[in-house]
Amino acid sequence: MGKPATPISAAMTNGNHTMSDDMLATLSLRNLLFDMCNRYGGGHGGSAIGMAAIGVALYKHVMRYNPSNPAWFDRDRFVLSNGHAAMFLYALNHLVGYDDWTIDQLQGYSNAKVDGYTTIAHGHPEIEAPGIEVTTGPLGQGIANAVGLSIASKNLAARFNRPDFDIVQSRIYCMTGDGCLMEGVALEAIALAGHLQLDNLVLLYDNNQVTCDGPLSWINTEDINATMRACGWHVLDVSDGSHDVSAIVSALDYARNVKAPIFVNIRTTIGVGTSTAGTAKAHHGAFDAESVAQSKHAAGLDPDQTYAIPPRALSYFRERKVHGEEQEAAWSALLAAYSKAHPESYSNFLGRQLGHVPNRVFEVLDSFDSSKMGSLATRESNGVIMELIWNICDALCGGGADLANSNKIYQASTDVFLPGNFAGRYVRYGIREHAMASISNGIAAYHPGTFIPITATFLMFYLYAAPGVRMGALSGLQAIHFATHDSFAEGQNGPTHQPVEVDSLYRAMPNLTFFRPCDAEELVAGWTYALKSETRPTIISVGRDPPGPVPNTNRERALKGAYVIQDVAKARVTLASCGTCLHHAVAAAKQLNATGIAIRVVSCPSLDLFEEQAEEYKRTVFPIDGQAIVSVEEYVATTWARYVTASIGMTTYGYSASGPSNYRRFELDADGIERKVCAYLDDLDDGNARAAGWKQL
Amino acid sequence: MGKPATPISAAMTNGNHTMSDDMLATLSLRNLLFDMCNRYGGGHGGSAIGMAAIGVALYKHVMRYNPSNPAWFDRDRFVLSNGHAAMFLYALNHLVGYDDWTIDQLQGYSNAKVDGYTTIAHGHPEIEAPGIEVTTGPLGQGIANAVGLSIASKNLAARFNRPDFDIVQSRIYCMTGDGCLMEGVALEAIALAGHLQLDNLVLLYDNNQVTCDGPLSWINTEDINATMRACGWHVLDVSDGSHDVSAIVSALDYARNVKAPIFVNIRTTIGVGTSTAGTAKAHHGAFDAESVAQSKHAAGLDPDQTYAIPPRALSYFRERKVHGEEQEAAWSALLAAYSKAHPESYSNFLGRQLGHVPNRVFEVLDSFDSSKMGSLATRESNGVIMELIWNICDALCGGGADLANSNKIYQASTDVFLPGNFAGRYVRYGIREHAMASISNGIAAYHPGTFIPITATFLMFYLYAAPGVRMGALSGLQAIHFATHDSFAEGQNGPTHQPVEVDSLYRAMPNLTFFRPCDAEELVAGWTYALKSETRPTIISVGRDPPGPVPNTNRERALKGAYVIQDVAKARVTLASCGTCLHHAVAAAKQLNATGIAIRVVSCPSLDLFEEQAEEYKRTVFPIDGQAIVSVEEYVATTWARYVTASIGMTTYGYSASGPSNYRRFELDADGIERKVCAYLDDLDDGNARAAGWKQL
Repeated sequence: MGKPATPISAAMTNGNHTMSDDMLATLSLRNLLFDMCNRYGGGHGGSAIGMAAIGVALYKHVMRYNPSNPAWFDRDRFVLSNGHAAMFLYALNHLVGYDDWTIDQLQGYSNAKVDGYTTIAHGHPEIEAPGIEVTTGPLGQGIANAVGLSIASKNLAARFNRPDFDIVQSRIYCMTGDGCLMEGVALEAIALAGHLQLDNLVLLYDNNQVTCDGPLSWINTEDINATMRACGWHVLDVSDGSHDVSAIVSALDYARNVKAPIFVNIRTTIGVGTSTAGTAKAHHGAFDAESVAQSKHAAGLDPDQTYAIPPRALSYFRERKVHGEEQEAAWSALLAAYSKAHPESYSNFLGRQLGHVPNRVFEVLDSFDSSKMGSLATRESNGVIMELIWNICDALCGGGADLANSNKIYQASTDVFLPGNFAGRYVRYGIREHAMASISNGIAAYHPGTFIPITATFLMFYLYAAPGVRMGALSGLQAIHFATHDSFAEGQNGPTHQPVEVDSLYRAMPNLTFFRPCDAEELVAGWTYALKSETRPTIISVGRDPPGPVPNTNRERALKGAYVIQDVAKARVTLASCGTCLHHAVAAAKQLNATGIAIRVVSCPSLDLFEEQAEEYKRTVFPIDGQAIVSVEEYVATTWARYVTASIGMTTYGYSASGPSNYRRFELDADGIERKVCAYLDDLDDGNARAAGWKQL
Repeated sequence: MGKPATPISAAMTNGNHTMSDDMLATLSLRNLLFDMCNRYGGGHGGSAIGMAAIGVALYKHVMRYNPSNPAWFDRDRFVLSNGHAAMFLYALNHLVGYDDWTIDQLQGYSNAKVDGYTTIAHGHPEIEAPGIEVTTGPLGQGIANAVGLSIASKNLAARFNRPDFDIVQSRIYCMTGDGCLMEGVALEAIALAGHLQLDNLVLLYDNNQVTCDGPLSWINTEDINATMRACGWHVLDVSDGSHDVSAIVSALDYARNVKAPIFVNIRTTIGVGTSTAGTAKAHHGAFDAESVAQSKHAAGLDPDQTYAIPPRALSYFRERKVHGEEQEAAWSALLAAYSKAHPESYSNFLGRQLGHVPNRVFEVLDSFDSSKMGSLATRESNGVIMELIWNICDALCGGGADLANSNKIYQASTDVFLPGNFAGRYVRYGIREHAMASISNGIAAYHPGTFIPITATFLMFYLYAAPGVRMGALSGLQAIHFATHDSFAEGQNGPTHQPVEVDSLYRAMPNLTFFRPCDAEELVAGWTYALKSETRPTIISVGRDPPGPVPNTNRERALKGAYVIQDVAKARVTLASCGTCLHHAVAAAKQLNATGIAIRVVSCPSLDLFEEQAEEYKRTVFPIDGQAIVSVEEYVATTWARYVTASIGMTTYGYSASGPSNYRRFELDADGIERKVCAYLDDLDDGNARAAGWKQL
């Protein structure tokens, strides 16, 4: 597959002896990328090099942004879904003049970062750095993020723009390689974006026909343009995307007037102008010295000089800094005029920009009378609370993956986000759980706090969504995920729908809180916590069926993650449980008490929150006095072993039968718990339960 | 959206007064489904009822199968990807005469199954029951399973068929609703099936334009036929799939001669002939008595009679039992002739049918000299072992999700499964992790042991694959998943590629073994275990980089899941670790020993296997004498707390930096471990470490 290196100077000058600004800019970007690759000896340089002309088109000619203020609210957003080509973004950020993106940072890309050394030039783009909209790398995520950013922008525009006052214009540009377009999450997001006709979204396909393992034709022969059209996208083609900046700019200018999401299929050559051009070898690693020298020579550089930029090219890029400042200043002036013409809208808009949940929301939560929910299933009370909050908190945006009627997620039919009603906030995600989570990350990433995305499906199907949920947690993006039907209590659907191990994933996932309330009172705590957690997602896990009665639940105490709901002096056993299982533990405690065994009961809506409490508090809930502490939950018990001396839980999958019969079948009803606790105490005699080591009962 | 009930008798007789056999059969199936729904008051009856004519076409006219022997090797396979319509399959299995599918079982569908009551008529189809090829329910999985079944059949046919001896002819029929076709896993599998031109695969789309929440147009407006064509499928349309059995049969007959996978887009009406026909209300629950009575009346039944089948309809269906027996007998005769004409191939074919791994494979593993692997990274030694086994074990089938060069998975270029070479066993899955796992389930489900599917990607991306991996574990299907780059040791890719919590999911997942060897010696144990585990999948988790030296590893002892590799009398501390982290614990032990603290070291390649050991053995590894036992791993430590008194692990995500610097950064190198252990011992004084409760260090 190896081709002889294209004579670069010829290709770049089209046979002329004068090199255009765009050609020099493209070449200069490539040279910087060559240096980053060759210093590293790794990184995914080939794609970045092949995409250089696309970078010039976007960053020099098309995108509306301000390098002097990466956080400008109405900037266009750029997503590098093929995040392995991170150096593309880093080099461009340097060239156009983002203050943080110094040459030192570019050099840091290839540094082993030992001894506490940190950098913003990570192996993949990370959201914390200026000029990076979302963390990308796991393939397909970026495309879904871009759909979320696009929804956010369309929604704000529909709500706040007024005649002559387009205060929200931001467009979303997303770069993708072959890989992202094979991933299910991207295919789901693409179908939804087409359905929603998101005309502010442009997906640029770096069509280099090569993947890590070899030619794309080894693994995909789909007619991608036809697929995109079938999904409702408008397709544009660019034949020489490695060199032809003006063709790319023309396509992107044309795209502004198309009333559909745009797919620009841009043919490029991976590692263009090098000895491995067009082959899988160009995907990773260093490039041959001769090609690099030739490229530098063509740009008028000394081939031995690294990280050098021809002054003409640098000033051509850096002009964007002034240009961006002017664009933002014009926008600010427009906003100032808007504030006078539409003072109320302006005030709301400002609130959304500031991005904090209004106090009124918390007042409503604080005054919510949970006792009125009676014995409603927690999914039902969740729907009631959601309706209250939805109507006073415009930041909430999102919906469920088709199961709204089962999830009991509130939706007003007039508030659905649709081509005719982009002001709607309820997103019908369709049966696309993975994209739902990843799109939510894009909605949250639009601007801190401007949106609080919500999602909903069965807890079991948050396993489909897990990579998206994880990216949200890793990126510090707020979201509220409503997981319903959260155990085998859901009944007859059977083990395919009954999670026994999904909690283990989420309870171990850093920067995510898994919250499993037992009733409406604890649900209020979950909502309060989730709305206040501005830099992490929360999963609120609720049940399908009405739970039995649980005494003494309390929203403030629930925020500590675990708290005593029934205490006795000299308890021989503490039972710890949560969610729809807790009432069985309460019933078992009653039975055990009746036999003369003194029992405490602890409600544990969130082990994550409990883990954050002071050691002293933890010891009051779970004493280390050697008495038995037994967890009771319809899940595999690994996550409980940190706190308890024994666990009653699952070691198998569930069963297709009614909820009550499942509790009986798996000995997690009051009788089963009583039997197991008694057998445990018999085995222990009067020994120290902790010293005996953790037991699976 | 509600329509008046279609007059059923009119629709079914096309205005004639004589009802055709097919019409009566369709009506009889529907009546059975009405009874199942109305007795239940739940279940997804509407789709099943709308698909009745499709069922008649498949089970009466098209499929090659034998109700008297559900396990007939060369039967056509039917997959109900829209598994929520389970009753469709159950009723058909009864009608055509599968012995196990009695009327009692159909009635069991709606039984709460209390007090230990079991049934095979679960809420969703479960693989353990005769006449059910795969467990389905989570949407999209069945389509990927069907692709796997199709690969299995094509591969066997290419390997074993000879001129005049088509001993493998099985075709795969997969039924799907709207939901599956929106799921990423299905879209990935569809693209791969088109790429591979699997011409024995037929996907029948129950196009009823309604989902749980409402009309399909609310959430999807894709031109699905165009998408399928773009992916390389041949598309056929059937306009009246609710009634027109012969049109469906014609399409499926035509499909036999098309050299591509076939998509049959069949328009149906959900809940046809009832008051909720064509609406989301028909998705779930009972149907109106009047429509049901009318339907029964049309079939000549007493409307008050339930679970009744007109004799003419029953004998029409039951004829398939004799027909199937004849088909299998003809096949057996063909096979007998084949055994004489091609004795060696026959012998191999028989071996694949019996489905056990040849002893020779285990002999090779037993005699594998792991010391020759020196300091190779475990992913590298895994590739070496794989090549050995691949060449003597034809059952191995599968490959990686594009990262073969990184995963170091062995592949011979002549052994790639492709349209020109269906005899190849190496499947290039493309960048489709979720489909890879779910397709593997289909390959394994073809026949017990005939194939042992393998998959490969980074451990992090097994989170994309998780719903597929889980379905394999739930279904008891053997597979070997090679997860490489299994910690932040992988380095500069950064936290997006560094698992810290994925192990928590898999270590909690029932019927799946997570095996993390520290070197080639333990890898041999992992391979041995995985190949012998005929009813569960195994994840073998390996590292990117050469580990440091670990003494006394042993393949037999590794099979116990955890074992002592360094012992001392009166140890003050036991360090427990595994995989690429273990050598840091060994180095820390050396440093601690040098300071006078006596340390034992335990290697724990599999907590799952350890959990299965006798209590007595467990206590020899992790004594309950009150001495400190500290786990050391680059993951969140929840799963260790069952066995240890304290854990050194992660509480955050990783970092984009070199592997060694990450161990230092997160205090998981020898110095960090030493510091943390010393601080822990200081805090403990001489107290009982177990009694003090588990500590995160």
